[in-house]
Amino acid sequence: MSSTLSRAIKSFPNRFDPDVLSTLPAHLQETIRRRHQVLGPGYMLMYREPVEFVSGQGAHLFDHEGNDYLDVYNNVPCVGHAHPRVVEVVSRQLAAVNTNTRYVQEALVDYAERLLATFPAGLSRLSLACSGSEANDLAMRVAKYHTGGEGIIVTRWAYHGITSEVSRFSPSLGKGSPLGPGVRLIDPPDPRLVAPGSTLAEHMRAQVRDAIEDLERHGFRLAALVTDSTYSSDGIFTDPVGYMPGVVEEVHAAGGVYIADEVQSGFARLGEEMWGFARHGVLPDIVTMGKPMGNGVPISGVVFRPEVSDDFGRNVRYFNTFAGSSIPVAAGAAVLDVFEEENVQQRVLENGTTLRAGIEEITRESPYVAEVRGRGLYVGVEIVADRDTLAPDRGLAEDVISDMRDRRVLISGTAKAANVLKIRPPLAFTSADVTRFLETFAEVAKERL
Amino acid sequence: MSSTLSRAIKSFPNRFDPDVLSTLPAHLQETIRRRHQVLGPGYMLMYREPVEFVSGQGAHLFDHEGNDYLDVYNNVPCVGHAHPRVVEVVSRQLAAVNTNTRYVQEALVDYAERLLATFPAGLSRLSLACSGSEANDLAMRVAKYHTGGEGIIVTRWAYHGITSEVSRFSPSLGKGSPLGPGVRLIDPPDPRLVAPGSTLAEHMRAQVRDAIEDLERHGFRLAALVTDSTYSSDGIFTDPVGYMPGVVEEVHAAGGVYIADEVQSGFARLGEEMWGFARHGVLPDIVTMGKPMGNGVPISGVVFRPEVSDDFGRNVRYFNTFAGSSIPVAAGAAVLDVFEEENVQQRVLENGTTLRAGIEEITRESPYVAEVRGRGLYVGVEIVADRDTLAPDRGLAEDVISDMRDRRVLISGTAKAANVLKIRPPLAFTSADVTRFLETFAEVAKERL
Repeated sequence: MSSTLSRAIKSFPNRFDPDVLSTLPAHLQETIRRRHQVLGPGYMLMYREPVEFVSGQGAHLFDHEGNDYLDVYNNVPCVGHAHPRVVEVVSRQLAAVNTNTRYVQEALVDYAERLLATFPAGLSRLSLACSGSEANDLAMRVAKYHTGGEGIIVTRWAYHGITSEVSRFSPSLGKGSPLGPGVRLIDPPDPRLVAPGSTLAEHMRAQVRDAIEDLERHGFRLAALVTDSTYSSDGIFTDPVGYMPGVVEEVHAAGGVYIADEVQSGFARLGEEMWGFARHGVLPDIVTMGKPMGNGVPISGVVFRPEVSDDFGRNVRYFNTFAGSSIPVAAGAAVLDVFEEENVQQRVLENGTTLRAGIEEITRESPYVAEVRGRGLYVGVEIVADRDTLAPDRGLAEDVISDMRDRRVLISGTAKAANVLKIRPPLAFTSADVTRFLETFAEVAKERL
Repeated sequence: MSSTLSRAIKSFPNRFDPDVLSTLPAHLQETIRRRHQVLGPGYMLMYREPVEFVSGQGAHLFDHEGNDYLDVYNNVPCVGHAHPRVVEVVSRQLAAVNTNTRYVQEALVDYAERLLATFPAGLSRLSLACSGSEANDLAMRVAKYHTGGEGIIVTRWAYHGITSEVSRFSPSLGKGSPLGPGVRLIDPPDPRLVAPGSTLAEHMRAQVRDAIEDLERHGFRLAALVTDSTYSSDGIFTDPVGYMPGVVEEVHAAGGVYIADEVQSGFARLGEEMWGFARHGVLPDIVTMGKPMGNGVPISGVVFRPEVSDDFGRNVRYFNTFAGSSIPVAAGAAVLDVFEEENVQQRVLENGTTLRAGIEEITRESPYVAEVRGRGLYVGVEIVADRDTLAPDRGLAEDVISDMRDRRVLISGTAKAANVLKIRPPLAFTSADVTRFLETFAEVAKERL
């Protein structure tokens, strides 16, 4: 099946290789063969041995035999798989009605007010969409309209989505997806890339300034800088902070806007704040959010400073049929309920701290672990062949991921070289889950790291 | 609120005018004021007096006071508002698990096989997305990749969606949304536009040939012709058929593909066939679908001829997190269940025939009705100031829509001049619903038409 696949596809982290299909259990083989017959372009499975789940609870997933897998990867079911509150609220709404935003819906207004209350003053308009890609697509439409520019700055291996427009500023999609002519790439905030004598803040600011200069030299006025506060696909670079104020100054001086892509870092993923940008001490012009927003019911959002969005609103028609209709809004509101009732953010902070400390402890002596990075319930472990050269070791990373999966603990990989373990459980992760993860990780690390 | 709005916004059919907000009931005013404070660009309400619903059943919607409105407009709740089968299946799935397509899901494969079985041979690959816009965006990405072209042909007032890319080939969005440089417009298949001595087939074919020639003269190779088989936003032109084979021949001869946008016309809306394109005796290269697919749970799809999509699949990464996950797939499968159990298509055919015949009967003598068009449960009534000049009368159309709404029957308007009544109930529309609609319409027509 795969011999003619491009490097962009083959290099996807922790991708199941269809060439080994015949080694899988018979029923799994059969389902995957059928799948291959009917699904369109681009569908990939994860893990050397893919897995199917029939139920879930908290951070646990259960297969056909009732085996209990610990989910340390999925960020969509943020308050937990099949959370009873979300199930109840959404089921009730399904049984009542689902109207779109061209009808009056007090619940939509209530939700918008509640969600906007988690933002700093100034970010006061909410538009809803269906996916993170649609949110970033709308954000960029508005940014281009408002600024009159076409230039875009993103990090070197960023991922922002898969619409035609957004794929053109998502370099991590690889060579099959060409970048737009007005897109410029900068390093993620990796302190190891800073020249001696400089600082991370200077390095980031200089890169943005150079990118703007190069854009302008090519006739592109800046529309936007877009950053994911976790730099997830770049390899997870949450710290240190402190460089953003200078970066945003450059962006604004060039007439551009700063779009904070919170699809990964939003909804308290990083523990300290509801939104990742808040750690950086800057006010974005536009904020986008997605995956965890409805705990699996498709909903995404864009929050604007009105000065940035109101001219678009006066001139451009935008209606997204499903977005903002009663069912996704019910799901979004239920997630906010659970955040309050279970004090989710505090739990993320506490369990995230233990999780990261445990991972650091386990890997401290390993010659194959260059760094442990991350914050809250998002941790990256950079796997290298050699701590001095930092040469990435994708094979070893995938051995670890696969060994973990065989022990029924689900993580995956990230970064261009696919050598960073991506440890990102549902926010429902408990202290018992942390313990189970660390015990299993210690076993695997003992053999592999 | 509206004095600085563009013509594109103000001209939206049956749009609530915020300037008359103070004439509404107090609670409604309050909700709309709050809504205006928190929602982002582009949100519009329908009807001179907007309305809020708290429950629904079949083609009926109920407001806070329990008033029973007949829904003759919404195509998303296709098998009926809050259909018990869909509620049950989706609620059960919500309580079980929701994994994405990077895990094995037999239910996804089952659904894809079932849905593809409704297509003619050759259309055999399904990709899922979240919205019709995402479906059309992916369709165009694949079309451009496959053909190497950038040229697009659509009808003059077509609507295909709201991503950056799709908005550039959706002329009905109006002047605020510029068309792409490689987009060319042709007339919808309105026989009244055909020159004496010619035929509709010749007229349509000649327009496509001219558009291709003009594109090539400007350096654009053709990527795709995209048509909505109902020509919904153009004003609803379902008949006569017979012109598409020649049109598609031109498209293929120029190296382009034919994308059938079935967001409006799919899922048996037109009664005779599951898919609108099937009435035209042509095989599309790509088919897109959306709104009714999950009865309100966000799900959309793209079906490809493998020859068109497989090269994209080998080279380009595409992953849509929510799309194809367990909840939307459960909703999609439940809709197909209901189609089989209730023989939905037969019901559409029967009730559609009665509906249209009744509307024709009521409007036959009216000096203000130029034509009744449509098929199945999609009927358009063109309202004019004068049957000879065909001068559109938007005001009169909106009077009719508003009078119907005041009698608790919901329809809306379409076409560039907003003068075509858009009569498009859920497919759950019963013969009793047809009777109620026709009685109310006869009352309003007696006064207005």
